[in-house]
Amino acid sequence: MTNFSHYEINRRLRELAAHPIDLKAALTPERIAHFSAKALGFSLLFGTERIDDEILASLLQLAKEAKVMEKMKAMQSGGRLNRIDGFPSENRSVLHTAMRDVFEQRQCGEEAKKATDLALGELHKLERFLRDIDDRFTDVIQIGIGGSDLGPKALCLALEAYYLPGRRVHFISNVDPDDAAAVLEKVNLAKTLVVVVSKSGSTLETLTNEELVRHRMKKEGLEPKKHCVAVTGKGSPMDDPEKYLESFYIWDFVGGRYSATSMVGGVSLGFVLGFRGFKEILQGAHEMDVHAQQAEPRHNLPLLSALLGIWNRNFLKLPTVAIIPYSQALHRFPAHLQQLDMESNGKRIDKSGHSVDFSTGPVIWGEPGTNGQHSFYQLIHQGTDIVPLEFIGFTHCQYTQDLEIQHTTSQEKLLSNLFAQAIALAVGQESDNPNQYFPGNRPSRILLGSKLTPHTLGALLAYYEHKVAFQGFVWNINSFDQEGVQLGKKLANEVLTLFQKKRTKGEGHFKLGEAYLRFL
Amino acid sequence: MTNFSHYEINRRLRELAAHPIDLKAALTPERIAHFSAKALGFSLLFGTERIDDEILASLLQLAKEAKVMEKMKAMQSGGRLNRIDGFPSENRSVLHTAMRDVFEQRQCGEEAKKATDLALGELHKLERFLRDIDDRFTDVIQIGIGGSDLGPKALCLALEAYYLPGRRVHFISNVDPDDAAAVLEKVNLAKTLVVVVSKSGSTLETLTNEELVRHRMKKEGLEPKKHCVAVTGKGSPMDDPEKYLESFYIWDFVGGRYSATSMVGGVSLGFVLGFRGFKEILQGAHEMDVHAQQAEPRHNLPLLSALLGIWNRNFLKLPTVAIIPYSQALHRFPAHLQQLDMESNGKRIDKSGHSVDFSTGPVIWGEPGTNGQHSFYQLIHQGTDIVPLEFIGFTHCQYTQDLEIQHTTSQEKLLSNLFAQAIALAVGQESDNPNQYFPGNRPSRILLGSKLTPHTLGALLAYYEHKVAFQGFVWNINSFDQEGVQLGKKLANEVLTLFQKKRTKGEGHFKLGEAYLRFL
Repeated sequence: MTNFSHYEINRRLRELAAHPIDLKAALTPERIAHFSAKALGFSLLFGTERIDDEILASLLQLAKEAKVMEKMKAMQSGGRLNRIDGFPSENRSVLHTAMRDVFEQRQCGEEAKKATDLALGELHKLERFLRDIDDRFTDVIQIGIGGSDLGPKALCLALEAYYLPGRRVHFISNVDPDDAAAVLEKVNLAKTLVVVVSKSGSTLETLTNEELVRHRMKKEGLEPKKHCVAVTGKGSPMDDPEKYLESFYIWDFVGGRYSATSMVGGVSLGFVLGFRGFKEILQGAHEMDVHAQQAEPRHNLPLLSALLGIWNRNFLKLPTVAIIPYSQALHRFPAHLQQLDMESNGKRIDKSGHSVDFSTGPVIWGEPGTNGQHSFYQLIHQGTDIVPLEFIGFTHCQYTQDLEIQHTTSQEKLLSNLFAQAIALAVGQESDNPNQYFPGNRPSRILLGSKLTPHTLGALLAYYEHKVAFQGFVWNINSFDQEGVQLGKKLANEVLTLFQKKRTKGEGHFKLGEAYLRFL
Repeated sequence: MTNFSHYEINRRLRELAAHPIDLKAALTPERIAHFSAKALGFSLLFGTERIDDEILASLLQLAKEAKVMEKMKAMQSGGRLNRIDGFPSENRSVLHTAMRDVFEQRQCGEEAKKATDLALGELHKLERFLRDIDDRFTDVIQIGIGGSDLGPKALCLALEAYYLPGRRVHFISNVDPDDAAAVLEKVNLAKTLVVVVSKSGSTLETLTNEELVRHRMKKEGLEPKKHCVAVTGKGSPMDDPEKYLESFYIWDFVGGRYSATSMVGGVSLGFVLGFRGFKEILQGAHEMDVHAQQAEPRHNLPLLSALLGIWNRNFLKLPTVAIIPYSQALHRFPAHLQQLDMESNGKRIDKSGHSVDFSTGPVIWGEPGTNGQHSFYQLIHQGTDIVPLEFIGFTHCQYTQDLEIQHTTSQEKLLSNLFAQAIALAVGQESDNPNQYFPGNRPSRILLGSKLTPHTLGALLAYYEHKVAFQGFVWNINSFDQEGVQLGKKLANEVLTLFQKKRTKGEGHFKLGEAYLRFL
């Protein structure tokens, strides 16, 4: 496989990047209409990126040289894309798409079909479970961390408008004991379902927090077994009918950060939305999966977004990306995307184990608009660094409780701000007062949907999953492992022995840990 | 005033940056102990930054050449630091420190004394108000955006462990109508106090949300006037006893992002913590104010942090900073610091109006640890870019509900992870497997406190306010205005006229806005 830097079109893109288009002169209504793509009710509007027709064609050529469509098809069919060639590594299929391939147009790859069959089994189990528990619980606490927390949490918070009456959801993730304590202050455990999520069944934070919650239940005279369900790998230490009301299964072909549409998200989402609501999320995600695999590149939303990101990152050399939903319901969605993108593409070797000579995944961050406008947009407009933005917006609001104030609704005010920011960042402002001068030429794009519902949120989630995957395909890196989190775990266990007072002497890391403990 | 690039010591620092210290070889227990400073119960541990004694001495020399201690003193005494020389600009004192200069060791500057007298008046008003409302309300909703939201929200969420029994707080900020709708689902308005915060009394988002809430109150047969208080400038459109139970005042010498210790934060914090709790925040902040002004530079915590940040930003050329509290209670604190830092120092001109030829404020982002370890730390350890980290940790947890599991408490596990990360990032790991190779030499520092209380949180807040101010002093930029947010507001109003259908023809921005509206 060719190295990213050696694709033929790469040299031309570098030349083009030396003189990117001047948006201050170029931005016209025609340009906004021209640089757009529509699919599944979404419009991707990228006239405010620093591209022209030749650059877009070259980026599409890059996608072709990198065979990204073939790789996307291979991934969804069950190819073993999670591996490093020539070195001991994970060697797995990447089949989060199979978790929602439960409608028409099923994949025909053998591995993918098997994964979908497993997913269907869990879906039926979930449907039955939700029916059986009936109204026994009002609240659910999900205990998990990383992929077992951020995605499910972002989705749950985004859909509060659609909860079944009286249902609430809480999350405990951090090993900080105050995280569990604060949640336990707020719930009546007698009416609470606890969903413990760990694929390995051995995640330190999760098991510790589970113990804290079980301890509290016993203190309150409750039987933990009647409240706790496990979401874990079959046969893991947590797959234990003595301890749990039910076990839901996940598999090593679904990575944590891609697992929100598996039972990792399914149990809590199903609890608050109802089984049908969760199925709508799956349907939206599945439609985007099919689109990512089948839409032709010039109109393929996640692919376009991936390529524009690569233009900004590798050719315009911009080190971060801000993702700004103009939707308060999506307030934790950037935190999920931060994990999804940075854990997938924050890599320094390619799939053959060679150190890369180009930049991979950028720093991803973001907060909702309009809030950000009153906060960090100062730097976005007038800072010394350029931050490309990905805006997300919707035509309609979720609750129907909008009011016309001074002849416009809040939703109209929100959208006006969104569009105004894209324009302002692109065209800037001349001024004799240097403090009122805006340099412009700051790139952004908008993904515009109709309304944030379970269905469209599923599609939005999958849009980002595939954007990340497409970028990894272009860079030829493994977007599906996470070796970089291992060293910290190992050293944490070493430092922990100091607290256990098991060891009084040691060298290396042990001595360094000791030096820190003196400050406590 | 000398330009940052022309300080004499700047050239030496650039030379030193060409060969920064190799932490893989250099990190020893002695180094950890040596590169530390203690004050007010906090330890700043910066042995894992890429500095040596000469670099530290040079950074302190830079601070001296830039006269930062003189500027800090001038700021706290009421000097007019918020201005651009030679151009129309704000021309104001910067006196958030006066809001908490209500203990011993008062400032003697005339302006500062006047500001403190005003603050004392509001504090007495607040004390009386909180006594008078007694138990009439269980919940408070704060309506504000930007500085009127992020700081108060971060502080309130950080101190839930100390709330008066039965008290709760909510925030509405976004003009997205779903923000207000979701909060209104959760409260009993009959028992709710509403704090509306806008210095000018004319912030679009805030007034719109206030209207939504007042509308709902009337629908429920409540009298809004009996529930709403205003926090605003004296004489603003919101300073109206016909509409509000009470008006609390703020002034133009307290910038929004520095206003959490004024009545902008005071009313809601006082409501949930009690007046005494709010006073403890002020006391902690005040102690850090005195420390920032009086401690000698080598042991001045916010100054050291500012200088290490400048080393990473301007000499090691690192474009972002991640702030990672190992404390779940601080989960929204990075969002506040994002505004504080990026709105203050995301500037492209110096105080004389010249374009700068160096980098100013970096992108600030962050999420709590240990959560981040299971998320974006992959990129932190093994990405192609280096991200300097600012860790925050505490010896003790807030709630006393920790358990010993496998011979250590959760708090001990949390601290082990914190220290292990600092070590792992610095020393890395050799490996024959390229995927298990960690390059190391990734800089971080730790601010370690005893326990997160109202008092220490006040100190922590002021530590960051002064870190940001010190960096602005070194760069000679105005950290106290925000002209960069104006253009977007202006264009949003133009686009809004399209929705109002007031105009059917127009040019320029109007036409661009129209092009976007066609996608709705």
